[in-house]
Amino acid sequence: MKDGGWEKRTHYCGTLRTSDVGREVVLNGWVQTRRDHGGVIFLDLRDISGLVQVVCNPEVSPEAHAAARQVRSEYVLSCRGVVRARPEDSVNPRLPTGEVEVMAEKVTVINSSLTPPFEIEPGSGVEETLRLRYRYLDLRRPDMQEALLLRSRVTQEVRNFLISRNFLEIETPILTKSTPEGARDFVAPSRLQPGKFYALPQSPQLFKQLLMVAGFDRYFQIARCFRDEDLRADRQPEFTQIDLEMSFVEPEDVMSLMDEMFAHLFRSVLGVELPVPFPRLTWREAMERYGTDRPDRRWGMEMQDYSRLFRETEFKVFRSALEKGGRVRGFKVAGMRSPARRELDGLVDEARRLGAGGLVWMVRDGEGLKSPAAKFLSLPETEGVVRAAGLEEGEVLLLAAGGEELNAVLSGLRSYCAQRYAPRPDERFSFTWVTDFPLFEWDEEERRYKSNHHPFTAPSAGCLEYLEERPLEATSDSYDLVLNGVELGGGSIRIHDPELQRRVFGILGLSEEEAAEKFGFLLEAFRYGPPPHGGIAFGLDRLVMIMAGRESIREVIAFPKTQSGSDPLTGAPDVVYPEQLRELRLRPI
Amino acid sequence: MKDGGWEKRTHYCGTLRTSDVGREVVLNGWVQTRRDHGGVIFLDLRDISGLVQVVCNPEVSPEAHAAARQVRSEYVLSCRGVVRARPEDSVNPRLPTGEVEVMAEKVTVINSSLTPPFEIEPGSGVEETLRLRYRYLDLRRPDMQEALLLRSRVTQEVRNFLISRNFLEIETPILTKSTPEGARDFVAPSRLQPGKFYALPQSPQLFKQLLMVAGFDRYFQIARCFRDEDLRADRQPEFTQIDLEMSFVEPEDVMSLMDEMFAHLFRSVLGVELPVPFPRLTWREAMERYGTDRPDRRWGMEMQDYSRLFRETEFKVFRSALEKGGRVRGFKVAGMRSPARRELDGLVDEARRLGAGGLVWMVRDGEGLKSPAAKFLSLPETEGVVRAAGLEEGEVLLLAAGGEELNAVLSGLRSYCAQRYAPRPDERFSFTWVTDFPLFEWDEEERRYKSNHHPFTAPSAGCLEYLEERPLEATSDSYDLVLNGVELGGGSIRIHDPELQRRVFGILGLSEEEAAEKFGFLLEAFRYGPPPHGGIAFGLDRLVMIMAGRESIREVIAFPKTQSGSDPLTGAPDVVYPEQLRELRLRPI
Repeated sequence: MKDGGWEKRTHYCGTLRTSDVGREVVLNGWVQTRRDHGGVIFLDLRDISGLVQVVCNPEVSPEAHAAARQVRSEYVLSCRGVVRARPEDSVNPRLPTGEVEVMAEKVTVINSSLTPPFEIEPGSGVEETLRLRYRYLDLRRPDMQEALLLRSRVTQEVRNFLISRNFLEIETPILTKSTPEGARDFVAPSRLQPGKFYALPQSPQLFKQLLMVAGFDRYFQIARCFRDEDLRADRQPEFTQIDLEMSFVEPEDVMSLMDEMFAHLFRSVLGVELPVPFPRLTWREAMERYGTDRPDRRWGMEMQDYSRLFRETEFKVFRSALEKGGRVRGFKVAGMRSPARRELDGLVDEARRLGAGGLVWMVRDGEGLKSPAAKFLSLPETEGVVRAAGLEEGEVLLLAAGGEELNAVLSGLRSYCAQRYAPRPDERFSFTWVTDFPLFEWDEEERRYKSNHHPFTAPSAGCLEYLEERPLEATSDSYDLVLNGVELGGGSIRIHDPELQRRVFGILGLSEEEAAEKFGFLLEAFRYGPPPHGGIAFGLDRLVMIMAGRESIREVIAFPKTQSGSDPLTGAPDVVYPEQLRELRLRPI
Repeated sequence: MKDGGWEKRTHYCGTLRTSDVGREVVLNGWVQTRRDHGGVIFLDLRDISGLVQVVCNPEVSPEAHAAARQVRSEYVLSCRGVVRARPEDSVNPRLPTGEVEVMAEKVTVINSSLTPPFEIEPGSGVEETLRLRYRYLDLRRPDMQEALLLRSRVTQEVRNFLISRNFLEIETPILTKSTPEGARDFVAPSRLQPGKFYALPQSPQLFKQLLMVAGFDRYFQIARCFRDEDLRADRQPEFTQIDLEMSFVEPEDVMSLMDEMFAHLFRSVLGVELPVPFPRLTWREAMERYGTDRPDRRWGMEMQDYSRLFRETEFKVFRSALEKGGRVRGFKVAGMRSPARRELDGLVDEARRLGAGGLVWMVRDGEGLKSPAAKFLSLPETEGVVRAAGLEEGEVLLLAAGGEELNAVLSGLRSYCAQRYAPRPDERFSFTWVTDFPLFEWDEEERRYKSNHHPFTAPSAGCLEYLEERPLEATSDSYDLVLNGVELGGGSIRIHDPELQRRVFGILGLSEEEAAEKFGFLLEAFRYGPPPHGGIAFGLDRLVMIMAGRESIREVIAFPKTQSGSDPLTGAPDVVYPEQLRELRLRPI
């Protein structure tokens, strides 16, 4: 293996076509496979663009053939040769380069390779920690390369769009001060000011608001953010956010611009035309119709309120719930027809797992209903159910009775049914805006109101009169964008009126001193003419994950961390030298 | 001051022209100035696009006039009115909107403002800490807005160029492991793994090399980097780097692509045509001709070696230096003619301040030379000096005698002369590549060789034979780009041959164990077929600073830190709650 002597590529492997036949080319890449067919050796040579077959025939070039004999998978080669059409019977229609091959004249081994611990092939049969440990090999797989290529294109098209709409990209600090996002901050000790720490930002929220005060009018940033959370599910300690803020706007301005942005993005990157404007639901509608503020509307299965049918029912479960002020709600299961008893039992089990006291299924059976409740139902009730649900022969309605806790149960059941029974949806991508979230929520533990988003979120204009009297009824000028049941991001119009901000702090039980300690510099800035402003932020990792059709954000991050926040490749986090801690004036407990 | 009721803009203030005359417009912005001319009030209204004059005439709209009476500087307004041509005698030719004004029909005060602590005007008469304390007001100044607008355009055009050349933008981690850049790392303690720390990257160096091993071929990132240095001069603890890496390349490939990138950037952003390819100097040439590896070549004043003229001289200072193996070197001062004695003394003082034993000046005076050394010089020596330096009447040659320490002295003197005497250069932007840096340097304190760049830098092919024998003579495949005497960035081809890497570690005195501890994962990756690769990184802050014609990188960073690493606006770094430290299992010493 010696340095130098290799020729630089003239072409990328995956780009060769029949129009290149007869051309002499030089390729640089990795050996995907090597097949020794007696006299002739076939190499699949791979680079970022794809593969092409290189034929090493000793009668054409004994030197190339001799060199090819010593190569193994993942060796790095430079190959010179002539492109020729493959014989008809060896054309490979699954390969973009499958109609041609390169007849090798010279093969130079640039570097050798140990045998990789797993095959460099698409698919994910390999245990994830091993993949992350050898991420540089895992990333050689075409599906990972496609995912990162997609990510690169997504970020650039988002920028192109926003810049075309007069947004300025402005970088905000990473070594900064705590932001009011509610999770734990990562901190970095200051050596020059012992005992003090920088906080890594959970979002650029405060800075983007300051930029509006500074008059920048339209700001964006593809911003790295940090949250020191107990890592459950698909979270990463650092993640990337498409972050933007605009001055002199109302919710409509932000939402309609984002409609356009996503339409541009999906058209330019995926060739998909999204129907815009995206449909909008208020938070209340979303909870009523889907039991969640992140509805995946591709599955239909909207919930209905069947309470009025059962006001006088003999069926005690329903009647007693109604008498207590509860409701009877439910939905028709898409794609389920004349199910086996076992399947219905499965639904009841799932409802219990989700915390329901019980679940009543009803299956249309001729003129009547099959149901555990059937014998308690009057004819008008049965007919009413069939009519209200539009229940056809064999179709299944699920009903539950109770209060607001039904939302979680029914929306969980809806997901369960969607995964098991619902036909594959026509829509690949279903966007919905959910707006007008409650401004506050009640924290039972701390016995006080908390902001649903953050304390700078503007109340809806109609709620200003009763803010103090009925805080939980107040809604905000807020909007979340949901894609296929995943919250892509959210935002709001911010309070720009100091008096209104004081009222909100008052309801949150924040004294002026506490407010000043937490966000003093923002409040001070707001004394110098803040414009009306609002913005939004989207999780880039999630967005790319859905666009790429992957199941985890780790599949669209080059070097992600595990659930424990470790990087099996670099070994981060790691111990530091004792001197380093001493310089920081810290010691371990 | 109440919420709502304001009208949204139809136009931006700074865009109105005579073609808009007669149009009804709504403007949203800040009051730059308010002038009450008896009956009529003139407001200059400002937004991101600039200013326009709004006229509030009580005879046109008593309401608008009444509203305008209560406004002050920096109040936020919405103004509706009709654009009209200014009377000829009140046209303001310095203002892009100076031919028009808006006759106000309605003025709504959206927000009030305290009186700012300094004027929102260009210029920098204000103390910097105060500016940073109120950065949101400082950023309202048009020069700061221009600088950040320029920065946004620069980053986007860099990306546009690189993406057009098939680079992928890939994000690398910020919570990671120590990188081999030599400065101190910032660290962030891990709560989930007490006693362990993430390091914030000094550069994405290791990750970008891993991406090449992964086959990504061409990577770039506008990357945030962190160095915990004692902050001298114009440094920031966090800074932004244009970072890229390419596979299967030689230095020529990287440099010529960067020539194109900067040509594209300066053309698209500044409308400046840069002459490409940029001139190249080897490190040795740069030191010989300018005494520095960061020459500002706009000033001319190349150094020459005059030693051969003085081999036999009676002038003892020169002869004894030459006899000790030293040289006599110097340069002609551009722009200085028949100077006063005081100025010449100033040069000598500056030379002493720079550490020189002495400096000899020679001024052409008719057929002879005026100089402290004149009386010791023979006629052939005098004539030789005049001829070799091309010295015309009254021009000044500076000479010093000694060893390599002359480089620092003469290059310092050259800068001194450039600032004081040299005529303003024709070139606004002077780029130079400096290549072939020494591979190693000798660390006298630790008594061992150190890498001049980092230990993965590839030696020049011609030096491979004598690497161990004469390490200090070995050069590397490295290249720095210098703009107007500022190092914009640098890079190198990396070692991809494990055997060569072992040799370099050997010369650095790094055992296999130490190397494995420091960069083990990279070395392991290099066992699986790394391609030949190389790259470069540029300081974005410095680049934008020079493009914007500013003197400090803090002028092109939205929220910079002071010399002590503080942010006077947010108060970062700050103390953390004791519980937070306890959770991190740390305590202060």
